[in-house]
Amino acid sequence: MAKLIKHGTIVTAADQYQADVLIEDKIITQIGLNLEAEGAEIIDASGHYVFPGGIDPHTHLDMPFGGTVTADDFETGTKAAAFGGTTTIIDFCLTNKGVPLSQSVQTWHEKAAGKAVIDYGFHLMIGEITDEVLAELPKMILDEGITSLKVFMAYKNVFQADDGTLFRTLLEAKEHGALVMVHAENGDVIDYLIKKALDEGNTEPIYHALTRPSVIEGEATGRAAKLTALANSQLYVVHVTCQEAVEQITEARNKGVDVWGETCPQYLLLDQSYLEKPDFEGAKYVWSPPLRETYHQEALWNALKNGQLQTLGSDHCSFNFKGQKDLGLGDFSKIPNGGPVIEDRFSILYSEGVAKGRITINQFVDIVSTRIAKLFGLFPRKGTIAVGCDADIVIFNPNVSRTISAETHHMNVDYNPFEGITITGEPVTVLSRGEYVIKNKQFAGTPGAGQFVKRGTYNPASLGVTTKKEAVQL
Amino acid sequence: MAKLIKHGTIVTAADQYQADVLIEDKIITQIGLNLEAEGAEIIDASGHYVFPGGIDPHTHLDMPFGGTVTADDFETGTKAAAFGGTTTIIDFCLTNKGVPLSQSVQTWHEKAAGKAVIDYGFHLMIGEITDEVLAELPKMILDEGITSLKVFMAYKNVFQADDGTLFRTLLEAKEHGALVMVHAENGDVIDYLIKKALDEGNTEPIYHALTRPSVIEGEATGRAAKLTALANSQLYVVHVTCQEAVEQITEARNKGVDVWGETCPQYLLLDQSYLEKPDFEGAKYVWSPPLRETYHQEALWNALKNGQLQTLGSDHCSFNFKGQKDLGLGDFSKIPNGGPVIEDRFSILYSEGVAKGRITINQFVDIVSTRIAKLFGLFPRKGTIAVGCDADIVIFNPNVSRTISAETHHMNVDYNPFEGITITGEPVTVLSRGEYVIKNKQFAGTPGAGQFVKRGTYNPASLGVTTKKEAVQL
Amino acid sequence: MAKLIKHGTIVTAADQYQADVLIEDKIITQIGLNLEAEGAEIIDASGHYVFPGGIDPHTHLDMPFGGTVTADDFETGTKAAAFGGTTTIIDFCLTNKGVPLSQSVQTWHEKAAGKAVIDYGFHLMIGEITDEVLAELPKMILDEGITSLKVFMAYKNVFQADDGTLFRTLLEAKEHGALVMVHAENGDVIDYLIKKALDEGNTEPIYHALTRPSVIEGEATGRAAKLTALANSQLYVVHVTCQEAVEQITEARNKGVDVWGETCPQYLLLDQSYLEKPDFEGAKYVWSPPLRETYHQEALWNALKNGQLQTLGSDHCSFNFKGQKDLGLGDFSKIPNGGPVIEDRFSILYSEGVAKGRITINQFVDIVSTRIAKLFGLFPRKGTIAVGCDADIVIFNPNVSRTISAETHHMNVDYNPFEGITITGEPVTVLSRGEYVIKNKQFAGTPGAGQFVKRGTYNPASLGVTTKKEAVQL
Amino acid sequence: MAKLIKHGTIVTAADQYQADVLIEDKIITQIGLNLEAEGAEIIDASGHYVFPGGIDPHTHLDMPFGGTVTADDFETGTKAAAFGGTTTIIDFCLTNKGVPLSQSVQTWHEKAAGKAVIDYGFHLMIGEITDEVLAELPKMILDEGITSLKVFMAYKNVFQADDGTLFRTLLEAKEHGALVMVHAENGDVIDYLIKKALDEGNTEPIYHALTRPSVIEGEATGRAAKLTALANSQLYVVHVTCQEAVEQITEARNKGVDVWGETCPQYLLLDQSYLEKPDFEGAKYVWSPPLRETYHQEALWNALKNGQLQTLGSDHCSFNFKGQKDLGLGDFSKIPNGGPVIEDRFSILYSEGVAKGRITINQFVDIVSTRIAKLFGLFPRKGTIAVGCDADIVIFNPNVSRTISAETHHMNVDYNPFEGITITGEPVTVLSRGEYVIKNKQFAGTPGAGQFVKRGTYNPASLGVTTKKEAVQL
Repeated sequence: MAKLIKHGTIVTAADQYQADVLIEDKIITQIGLNLEAEGAEIIDASGHYVFPGGIDPHTHLDMPFGGTVTADDFETGTKAAAFGGTTTIIDFCLTNKGVPLSQSVQTWHEKAAGKAVIDYGFHLMIGEITDEVLAELPKMILDEGITSLKVFMAYKNVFQADDGTLFRTLLEAKEHGALVMVHAENGDVIDYLIKKALDEGNTEPIYHALTRPSVIEGEATGRAAKLTALANSQLYVVHVTCQEAVEQITEARNKGVDVWGETCPQYLLLDQSYLEKPDFEGAKYVWSPPLRETYHQEALWNALKNGQLQTLGSDHCSFNFKGQKDLGLGDFSKIPNGGPVIEDRFSILYSEGVAKGRITINQFVDIVSTRIAKLFGLFPRKGTIAVGCDADIVIFNPNVSRTISAETHHMNVDYNPFEGITITGEPVTVLSRGEYVIKNKQFAGTPGAGQFVKRGTYNPASLGVTTKKEAVQL
Repeated sequence: MAKLIKHGTIVTAADQYQADVLIEDKIITQIGLNLEAEGAEIIDASGHYVFPGGIDPHTHLDMPFGGTVTADDFETGTKAAAFGGTTTIIDFCLTNKGVPLSQSVQTWHEKAAGKAVIDYGFHLMIGEITDEVLAELPKMILDEGITSLKVFMAYKNVFQADDGTLFRTLLEAKEHGALVMVHAENGDVIDYLIKKALDEGNTEPIYHALTRPSVIEGEATGRAAKLTALANSQLYVVHVTCQEAVEQITEARNKGVDVWGETCPQYLLLDQSYLEKPDFEGAKYVWSPPLRETYHQEALWNALKNGQLQTLGSDHCSFNFKGQKDLGLGDFSKIPNGGPVIEDRFSILYSEGVAKGRITINQFVDIVSTRIAKLFGLFPRKGTIAVGCDADIVIFNPNVSRTISAETHHMNVDYNPFEGITITGEPVTVLSRGEYVIKNKQFAGTPGAGQFVKRGTYNPASLGVTTKKEAVQL
Repeated sequence: MAKLIKHGTIVTAADQYQADVLIEDKIITQIGLNLEAEGAEIIDASGHYVFPGGIDPHTHLDMPFGGTVTADDFETGTKAAAFGGTTTIIDFCLTNKGVPLSQSVQTWHEKAAGKAVIDYGFHLMIGEITDEVLAELPKMILDEGITSLKVFMAYKNVFQADDGTLFRTLLEAKEHGALVMVHAENGDVIDYLIKKALDEGNTEPIYHALTRPSVIEGEATGRAAKLTALANSQLYVVHVTCQEAVEQITEARNKGVDVWGETCPQYLLLDQSYLEKPDFEGAKYVWSPPLRETYHQEALWNALKNGQLQTLGSDHCSFNFKGQKDLGLGDFSKIPNGGPVIEDRFSILYSEGVAKGRITINQFVDIVSTRIAKLFGLFPRKGTIAVGCDADIVIFNPNVSRTISAETHHMNVDYNPFEGITITGEPVTVLSRGEYVIKNKQFAGTPGAGQFVKRGTYNPASLGVTTKKEAVQL
Repeated sequence: MAKLIKHGTIVTAADQYQADVLIEDKIITQIGLNLEAEGAEIIDASGHYVFPGGIDPHTHLDMPFGGTVTADDFETGTKAAAFGGTTTIIDFCLTNKGVPLSQSVQTWHEKAAGKAVIDYGFHLMIGEITDEVLAELPKMILDEGITSLKVFMAYKNVFQADDGTLFRTLLEAKEHGALVMVHAENGDVIDYLIKKALDEGNTEPIYHALTRPSVIEGEATGRAAKLTALANSQLYVVHVTCQEAVEQITEARNKGVDVWGETCPQYLLLDQSYLEKPDFEGAKYVWSPPLRETYHQEALWNALKNGQLQTLGSDHCSFNFKGQKDLGLGDFSKIPNGGPVIEDRFSILYSEGVAKGRITINQFVDIVSTRIAKLFGLFPRKGTIAVGCDADIVIFNPNVSRTISAETHHMNVDYNPFEGITITGEPVTVLSRGEYVIKNKQFAGTPGAGQFVKRGTYNPASLGVTTKKEAVQL
């Protein structure tokens, strides 16, 4: 049945205006003043914003890590995402050396099938470049629509790839139209610092932060950007946490290198002192890269404002405090890395960004949805409110305030890192391709209704930075 | 009568999609698939882009300068603008020391009244800060809707204001919600260099460029940005021409200072060597700041791409080669400064920017229209294609190529600085508040139909950079 | 009579070694191990450093300012200098518009004659460029040996010159071999801020600092450096106080522009909070530029260490607290600017720099003497310990500590800004051209024994940075 | 027998003056005017400079590489060095994994013993950090006087160490007082680029340069500097070739990080086009890092001038064109890397630096001798002309010009990379600890007379930059 959203204020990455939105056959078919549509269900959005659904470019659902598995799977994770205003996620498909990429992708499809309540895509981890990988890559990108490749510069002896692998991935990505994502920290140095800390009997969670100083996130970020320039390719730096990394990204972009940066809500709001909470509670705040000293937060906000960073991901990777995080009791290096953020990413950016005057409401939409869609080949099907697009829509009430709490959240995990923080605004109704997922703050979706999205290749023409210089000439 | 634009591709600063546009009572009332509207005139836009009308933030029509008056007045100038796809201009209202601001504004209203074929606003020049000026300013800004103030750092003994005046203008602008515009060149140094050149018998047009080196445009730009930081105010640097100025703007913005930059088509396409054309033809290319060496062009394009510069103005200020430019025969300092650009600004950016892959089509719309509307208090009434906005629309054919020439242009001047340059794309039909100004490439407007627009105050919430730091504390 | 300094440790800008020094006929004639010289007076320097005498490039003795005259004249000032280890000063000769330069210089010669106990030279202030000034300048530089010209960018309506004057001074200096010195603050902005503060009833000394923010010292410094690049000339920025100015100097030098920077002890040790001392005591700390917030101190030390700043001047300009500084009671703008530093400059740099490990002992000699000699045409006659040089020597005991106090200092002024600060090291004996000025901490000199030094022209071959680029081409 | 150098012009890193120099018992005992010394041999230095002997911090003598051994051993190499004005070298002692450091050092002692005609020291390569290495290191540094450690970031699978090894070496060096030297290029990326070039049939010498782009020298340099900051240690970057690396060093130094940089004559004078010489002659110019495009030369000269780079090494590593370089016929990756420079380093810097006005004569002495002595624990015994120092002296005639040629050089190799270049100035007589090595341009030394020098630990107090910030806190 057609739906007609009336009296709302539509906001896109560029515009803000009052109009009605007609949805037919899963897509937006009309936007206008005083629209009428016989037989359509009317949704009253008076006093509410009508936003494009959020897109979360960085989630880890049903993922094995350090001897355990993340607390949220594709069902609980996507439900929570939807409650929070997110209508598409892109999850990381892990791979293993020697295992065909197609097999890893198949595994990931199985995790999601029948469970997801919103649409989803996959990024593909690249841990090595072999003849087999080279043979499979074009198929993954062009046939499977998995148009982003992830390389780790940290997690030595686990995920970490060397610079030759990163460089070759950049060359392959350039050739076949993929975007390369990096986790940018110097894994070799971290590896030694962790050993040193443990050798000296420093086992508490705070040492997780102290063994991963920001200077080496900056270092790795700059290194990746320089290899990108050399390869004349494109790079997306995930979970940027610090001033040093922002500076490297800015410098590269100013030279015309095609580098993009993502940050996460935890780095904007929380800081290193959280890792010092007593009774091992610091473990709740163990992310990699770690939370930083507070002065980095201003650098990140300023970067979002000035366009030096372009997107917000959740890096959702949830582990229960009891039974999972406590694997690291007595050895911080065994604390599973990550935390539950998928639900609050969208609203936190609205509240701390727009309501507090740090960014405009158009920037909010861009950062939380539109730019992500453009970067990852989802645009214009998703990521905006425009005629012809998928009706992935969030009706958002900016006039309420509420307090984040594990007691009320929908993620399948026993704590919330933003516990007790009061924010402004709330998603009320969420549509995925025109169907209710959340209706008046109640779940109204269906596990399995979410579909895998084959994404388009990397498209500079929709983005606005294209590498021209320093390409290697051979 | 209502109009219905069918089958076009709508482009905004964020989006691009195919839909029909319904216009009723001067505004856009519906956007949708397969719209129908009884009685509406159908405009077929198949294969065409439907852009928001261009906004030219920098024109000088009917302006006295150096003993002569610009060749275009509000009638010929706005007609040419419309032919080129521009539906709003903001013209510079000159003032004189000792004369009430209101009187100068009145003079400018009289120049425009009954002549303009598209809508227009005014910027107000500030040459001194006196008690009278202080008393009048809030009225000009808040009552008259003239929400941008222009200060000259060059033209010693003519327009040039000292740094104290610039600083106080920044403080007043901050208080009352105006945007300060600067012409950033070090006038004192230029004044000496001109005298020196003439003393040494160097009188040809090329000496116009050689006496205004880029280093002092960079200097003045940085100076203005630092005073802006100190005043915690907002700045718009007009006609940025060189790498040094871009660097200063970038540095300020990275520190969170609220500085914006405009460049012009002439600085993107032409270079200093044009001033060396024989037979005094170099005089056609005398702008201030001057055309630069070619390597600056890449810096400007890169800045547009990365958002370090945000807008494109024409700085339209036309003088006939015969009878006006030739006032400077034998003395380059007497050549009237400026050239005819109002007509070609929009299409040149499309052709050189979008068609050549330097910027995205969304960036094009932002640079040529949307961002200007946001900066100068015209948004959301103008500057986008959205329901509820003024129907200022350009239907643009991207599939033709044409050659710019004075023989075919519509400006009232005997040469075109882009003569012979072939560009891609052409405005076909142009609507101003829903009425034809150009219909199938023919003029269809009415002198006097254009209205003066009272503009809103400077609104950081629509812009995304707000000064937080280094504010003077007294 | 010959003198033989035995058993000391000689330190130059490059070297440090134990040897004896023989002085005959005012110059150093031998340096060696176990020297003997019949009939020579032996000076035992065991356990002491043998330094070249300090050179103070920045003093204001017997100078009229704001309706009063500095407390120290050439006798009291040079005596105090000698007590502190300084054997040469370069004092600023003020000029007045319309008065021949030669007449101003004559006035300054008369101030010094018969009074100075150590050698001295003059800098020449340039307030305007007229035909008369242009005619006299080469004579001043080449015949009179006054090879440095001072331009003020602040003190509006008093000393301030406009940018055209600064630029032309740079061109003249380049042509005739002089070094241009600037006081770099934006006088126009300061002028307004002072009026604003006073209008608002803010009259206490702290407002002296608040009306001269560091951002506009940085601005003026960068402006002067850019004009220097354009003129392909050479610049010396006096009394650098802040990070912003250091950054501008560094940036210019990295581009090959010939820019040098001086800081002063007060900016290294004291901070803005001193101006808030009760009972008008803040007036003692009124310098222009003002004392800054403490974080600037680290920037200055780092700049000395890295060679971004090259010299230390005292900017000695003493006024009694009672009877002079109190002219500004009730109006901070009337407080005479300046303070007594000539005596402590040398020892403070040793103590805070060398003894605290911030700079090497060779850097100390370079900063306090050698580099100044090279910059201002005194080298190799003065500024080092080498055979053939003037025997201007300081025998320095590094093994004592002492407390600075007005009660024990030798300056003719009733307070000391470093009152109560304990420092390491003390000049014991000071020779000027081989004659005692200080002997075992007692004055042993003669007023009038100090001679005017005609200085050599600016000599890039002794300095190491020469401008190559961005020279204006006309 | 004592020697008395008369009538020369002594030049140190700070001074320049005319005086006589008396040498007794291997050291300088007196410097004075008109010295006399009964029984001393008189050396007339009229019209000549008396320089401290050059110190070459970077040589590879008798070193195995790529299946061959360098053409010069300690006898031919040090003879050639002496002819060129160098009186001390520091040679690189290679090590092998699993072999005790002491054994490698012993091997190197054996290479030098009985052969060297001038004094020498060793640097020690660190390829891995094992418990054995950790145990031996303090002894090597403190007992053996080998106070500099070399880490390679390139030569994958040969010399290359990973970042963990570099970081730990920095920590050990900090603790025991050594200076860490790096070869800064990204070996992983180079390794791939070489394979790619060869796979594509690109085998000529020019591909040596094209597979080692400057961007990755900059990358590795910045990486090493950041690890140094983190370790709060000290770093010396050998053979800096490009603007990118200079920028990284400058940025680190400006932040107070203790980073030093060396360049080499080949990078100052030659460029990448030399590798394109026909008939495989390009192989003569194969160094790693490679020769660069010419614009880098200006960056290097400017860096020497401004103190961003501090020293000049030869990286002497000679291979005959016939019989050695031709191992790389048909495969550029097999060309032995390096060239003969030990003899011309000193004179080239004088001629191209001082005679051409790029640096001062004091900077020349600092760059070619004094600063090297200070950095590597040789000062004040070596590196200057001062009483008490080793009489390592070069008497240099600045008034001749001569042409560099393999026909006249003294290195044991069949070509000279500077063949045909005419330079100004020539060493005439060279003393090592007071004994002739070169007398009137003839060899007068003795193989085996050169002694191994145990060097002092790294001494910030003689250097002037000490790391204060960003130290890792664990």
